[in-house]
Amino acid sequence: MRALVYDGLNSVSLREKPLPSLASPTDAIVKVTKTTICGTDLHIRKGDVATCQPGRTLGHEGVGVIHSTGASVSRLKQGDRVLISCISSCATCEYCRRGMYSHCTSGGWILGNTIDGTQAEYVRIPHAESSLHPIPDGADDAALVMLSDIFPTGLECGVLNGKVQPGGTVVVVGSGPVGLAAIITAQMYSPSQVIAIDLDAKRLEVARQFGASDTINSAEADAVAKVKALTEGKGADSVIEAVGIPATFDLCQSLLAPGAVLANVGVHGTKVDLHLQNLWDKNIAITTRLVDTTTTPMLLKLVQSGKLKPSLLITHHFKLDDMEKAYETFGEASKHGTLKVIIDVD
Amino acid sequence: MRALVYDGLNSVSLREKPLPSLASPTDAIVKVTKTTICGTDLHIRKGDVATCQPGRTLGHEGVGVIHSTGASVSRLKQGDRVLISCISSCATCEYCRRGMYSHCTSGGWILGNTIDGTQAEYVRIPHAESSLHPIPDGADDAALVMLSDIFPTGLECGVLNGKVQPGGTVVVVGSGPVGLAAIITAQMYSPSQVIAIDLDAKRLEVARQFGASDTINSAEADAVAKVKALTEGKGADSVIEAVGIPATFDLCQSLLAPGAVLANVGVHGTKVDLHLQNLWDKNIAITTRLVDTTTTPMLLKLVQSGKLKPSLLITHHFKLDDMEKAYETFGEASKHGTLKVIIDVD
Amino acid sequence: MRALVYDGLNSVSLREKPLPSLASPTDAIVKVTKTTICGTDLHIRKGDVATCQPGRTLGHEGVGVIHSTGASVSRLKQGDRVLISCISSCATCEYCRRGMYSHCTSGGWILGNTIDGTQAEYVRIPHAESSLHPIPDGADDAALVMLSDIFPTGLECGVLNGKVQPGGTVVVVGSGPVGLAAIITAQMYSPSQVIAIDLDAKRLEVARQFGASDTINSAEADAVAKVKALTEGKGADSVIEAVGIPATFDLCQSLLAPGAVLANVGVHGTKVDLHLQNLWDKNIAITTRLVDTTTTPMLLKLVQSGKLKPSLLITHHFKLDDMEKAYETFGEASKHGTLKVIIDVD
Amino acid sequence: MRALVYDGLNSVSLREKPLPSLASPTDAIVKVTKTTICGTDLHIRKGDVATCQPGRTLGHEGVGVIHSTGASVSRLKQGDRVLISCISSCATCEYCRRGMYSHCTSGGWILGNTIDGTQAEYVRIPHAESSLHPIPDGADDAALVMLSDIFPTGLECGVLNGKVQPGGTVVVVGSGPVGLAAIITAQMYSPSQVIAIDLDAKRLEVARQFGASDTINSAEADAVAKVKALTEGKGADSVIEAVGIPATFDLCQSLLAPGAVLANVGVHGTKVDLHLQNLWDKNIAITTRLVDTTTTPMLLKLVQSGKLKPSLLITHHFKLDDMEKAYETFGEASKHGTLKVIIDVD
Repeated sequence: MRALVYDGLNSVSLREKPLPSLASPTDAIVKVTKTTICGTDLHIRKGDVATCQPGRTLGHEGVGVIHSTGASVSRLKQGDRVLISCISSCATCEYCRRGMYSHCTSGGWILGNTIDGTQAEYVRIPHAESSLHPIPDGADDAALVMLSDIFPTGLECGVLNGKVQPGGTVVVVGSGPVGLAAIITAQMYSPSQVIAIDLDAKRLEVARQFGASDTINSAEADAVAKVKALTEGKGADSVIEAVGIPATFDLCQSLLAPGAVLANVGVHGTKVDLHLQNLWDKNIAITTRLVDTTTTPMLLKLVQSGKLKPSLLITHHFKLDDMEKAYETFGEASKHGTLKVIIDVD
Repeated sequence: MRALVYDGLNSVSLREKPLPSLASPTDAIVKVTKTTICGTDLHIRKGDVATCQPGRTLGHEGVGVIHSTGASVSRLKQGDRVLISCISSCATCEYCRRGMYSHCTSGGWILGNTIDGTQAEYVRIPHAESSLHPIPDGADDAALVMLSDIFPTGLECGVLNGKVQPGGTVVVVGSGPVGLAAIITAQMYSPSQVIAIDLDAKRLEVARQFGASDTINSAEADAVAKVKALTEGKGADSVIEAVGIPATFDLCQSLLAPGAVLANVGVHGTKVDLHLQNLWDKNIAITTRLVDTTTTPMLLKLVQSGKLKPSLLITHHFKLDDMEKAYETFGEASKHGTLKVIIDVD
Repeated sequence: MRALVYDGLNSVSLREKPLPSLASPTDAIVKVTKTTICGTDLHIRKGDVATCQPGRTLGHEGVGVIHSTGASVSRLKQGDRVLISCISSCATCEYCRRGMYSHCTSGGWILGNTIDGTQAEYVRIPHAESSLHPIPDGADDAALVMLSDIFPTGLECGVLNGKVQPGGTVVVVGSGPVGLAAIITAQMYSPSQVIAIDLDAKRLEVARQFGASDTINSAEADAVAKVKALTEGKGADSVIEAVGIPATFDLCQSLLAPGAVLANVGVHGTKVDLHLQNLWDKNIAITTRLVDTTTTPMLLKLVQSGKLKPSLLITHHFKLDDMEKAYETFGEASKHGTLKVIIDVD
Repeated sequence: MRALVYDGLNSVSLREKPLPSLASPTDAIVKVTKTTICGTDLHIRKGDVATCQPGRTLGHEGVGVIHSTGASVSRLKQGDRVLISCISSCATCEYCRRGMYSHCTSGGWILGNTIDGTQAEYVRIPHAESSLHPIPDGADDAALVMLSDIFPTGLECGVLNGKVQPGGTVVVVGSGPVGLAAIITAQMYSPSQVIAIDLDAKRLEVARQFGASDTINSAEADAVAKVKALTEGKGADSVIEAVGIPATFDLCQSLLAPGAVLANVGVHGTKVDLHLQNLWDKNIAITTRLVDTTTTPMLLKLVQSGKLKPSLLITHHFKLDDMEKAYETFGEASKHGTLKVIIDVD
């Protein structure tokens, strides 16, 4: 089969590989129909992710069809259409029991990282019953690919961790795909304001189309002053960091109303300053999370009922044979106006 | 009347002052019977608290008897015995409605800070109905003084913010009075372990007497390694910072299990490092809070029912005339083995 | 001034009465600009509410302008425009502290019940600071009258008590004004389905316009079978009773999925059967509540931001002089297609 | 092997049966070392449980040693000591994902009901990884048998559903084994009062020994009046029904403070009256639950740390050969002063 393989620093390529086979009674082999590329895949390509070694098939998102199942898989059978969770969950370890699938002692984020992933014609999924979600015939497969990772990430790490509530005020710092997913899913909880901050006017325009009530270009304006002006001088109730660098984390700390939450979504490579001298008495919380995908079944229901439209994020489509070009288009997002790309494998 | 007055840098003295008078229909004048000294009073004496100017009567804790009430005070009358909350709360502003009395727009921590406080024979209490708690005859006044500030602080900022739960593991870094209040009140929620960390062997001995299941002298042992050894290698579910310096906040970050909360209680004067590069995917929360004293009525019930014994913390008693000596005894706590001192005003 | 007075069984009339005056330092006198009629007013007229005696001015909803204030009212001043809460709250008693304003020991539902109400040119509001909400110039007064009672009732007693959640399934039994308020506010939490059940086809048509995803006419269909068919055989996660008779409460019990909540909104005059033999092992909850109006500030923000449109419920307008006709129009709702009426007092 | 078998109406007997064998890759066979008898077993003997047919080995509680495991069981191996949960949980179905193991679509309460149970030398446990809990060497096996069902039942259905909180007031109606388990576990949350109500003076004496702050013999006193007198006229915050008949459920409704919860633990065979005419505006909740055993790991930690002593409930010990006598002793509890019996199988 064909698979997109990480070759080492700054290099990925489409190659022939043998089909995966069942390794445990709880495994399933899935024939991938659609997949996508994540910002994390770009990090791997840059050599930032030490756990992912050359030779690895990348990808942790996608939809597909069950090809074969292990002996203890009873709820899924050949031919079932499924959504692949980016997080593999055994469902029974201490962390899974607490809904922290990302810290599953025999799972977590392993696909396209420590085991071969979804950017291929077939993929082996461990703990299949608890890591795959059946999807109905007639569903929009491309839209559902957005539920493998980016929508649960925006929702869980941003919106839920940020305690977005009806009538509340929300700031999302960073209007890349994850920030936009947070902007869209924040509206599930009816905040009165969703303020998007970014340096790129085009992204802010997209943020507004996706429901941001206000936008601030922090290259042009004093973002702190503008947020204060929009929130009766208080700051926001929920501040979502969707970039992952010290400067944006610093900005977020200045935007917190008393009692607010700073929900970190960004992937950080270095330590940051925490201004406890200002924050120690402000009744705030700072939260971190690797997506657990506990919300995927709920998101599936909302997509099926037409109340959530994840396909908004999809800007480009590619065939598997054009995978390398897809990486380039996604990697140079601002040049191409890319949000998310869909790879049609079948 | 006599009052303990902040004279400016490093100086407090007992002086004669006129009796306070009612300034608003919602005020009450309270004849103080017992008060105490807080670590914050020492900070004021050192000149660390810019909002508190020379001439101010210090103190924000105490019990007393209602001397007179404003026209709109209907639930309290002359002669009623009351517990004084360290936080004045109007009960009706946006923050009070949300239980954030510490951020009351016309209250908060003002006693002994921006208005005259409780280390005196009489004190004016704004928003009397919502800032004073009636206490029954026969109650142990000295014990109840501990409910003005230190017990709610340990409970709200440490235990509740730290989400201490039955069966959970708790670390309290710092075994001073506030850390000890956290250790005592943590047990209200039946954790399986409460681990105390301090540099002082005597304080750790007290921590153990007050219910710590384990103690670690961080001068002698690798605290991180010992906590990991006590928690199956995971770290603790609740880590309570009760010191307020960068080194202890740093230690706390190393003690967090996946899914844990770091509840900051300490007063911090400078920024600290936050190791987001390690914590971004660990599903943790960091919380801050100025005590709101929302739990005071509940703590009163537990003291009345005999289930909580705040008098454990009281090591010394003084008369009001010996107030300056009381400051010295409290200020040099390790020399005198001081936890909390009681000032008998009447 | 003119006031609508309860004269005793089945009789209300517009009469001249003296202007109310301040009775406590915490009172305000409000010049009413708009008010409405509640189902409870009809109950009073029928003699069902023993606490309300002849001679009483009715009404517990409305917006107006501050005419005068007591000595301890500092946040409101003459000329301020305000929304009147149907619940008077002292903010400081045990119940108010816990957000149960409906059980305020010196307030609760007293307006138009045990003290004179809002269907008049002027009304005295006790505990003014915590029972009135400032409203901005330019707001739609008629829409805001819906926030005095009916919207908080639908939201608090129905949606919040019913734990409506994203992706969840909701059934609302009864599509009168309160049921419709529940249907509208349920959507703030993004359920995947909102199923309306009623006997009246016209009301069901309105329910659908207001966002119900499905409607069931229980006169024509087996409501239990249809709900099961719409919910994969499980029943609904949230079942809201908005009628108040044994038959509908019985129906609700048959619609509960395992783990569901039955949120009672209806006013019940008799005991009902509870089928514990079926429900004891079903992990369900049944909740009751008199509206607390704790959500009014949040609803105000959502109306101001344009995300909630309570004016949907308003079908008729009357002048104060036509108040008796307004009662008739509201009392014979199905004949006139009435949902809520607005009385323009000024 | 020997097994205690339900023979049909009013008859159980010890018989020889073949050893169970693995039926699914997720099964384990456990050699039982200790088991006990539950009130539900008595219901089965009386013919009240239609799902349990003659020939069935009874019992759903116990500890034992792993004898063999299916192919997909990786966390347990022969020789491991385990606690058997009364609820079998697949961990992956919709209900298990939400912590409602009792409604597991391929599990729930099946042991000793629809499949053979634990009152035997060996038992087959489906979904072994998520239905068995490893226990450490040196643990008190008899005490741990109490964690199979009765302690989680008292805690989950009574204490947690009843929202027992620090400083709150709790009434437990019924001081049988389950009521006593609720009384013991309620104290994990530090209520200020735990009031036990029963008709049997001996049981009330036991309730007091186990931590009840007050007891009421409802044969001798007006329980409603006494509870009101003990709670400042309000009623209790948490009322736990641990009997299961209309009279006690009725009593519970009269004991609710505004804002209270009535947590039903009793197994009810008929409908009951619900006095909605009194309760509709009282902001109360009524909850039901079949135990989910989600709290078993937490209870294990508390037993291991010495903070919880379930062995308090054990009054009698029997050998497996005396099983029929054990049934008699447990069935005529008041005659023998029986709380829980332990059957030593090995």
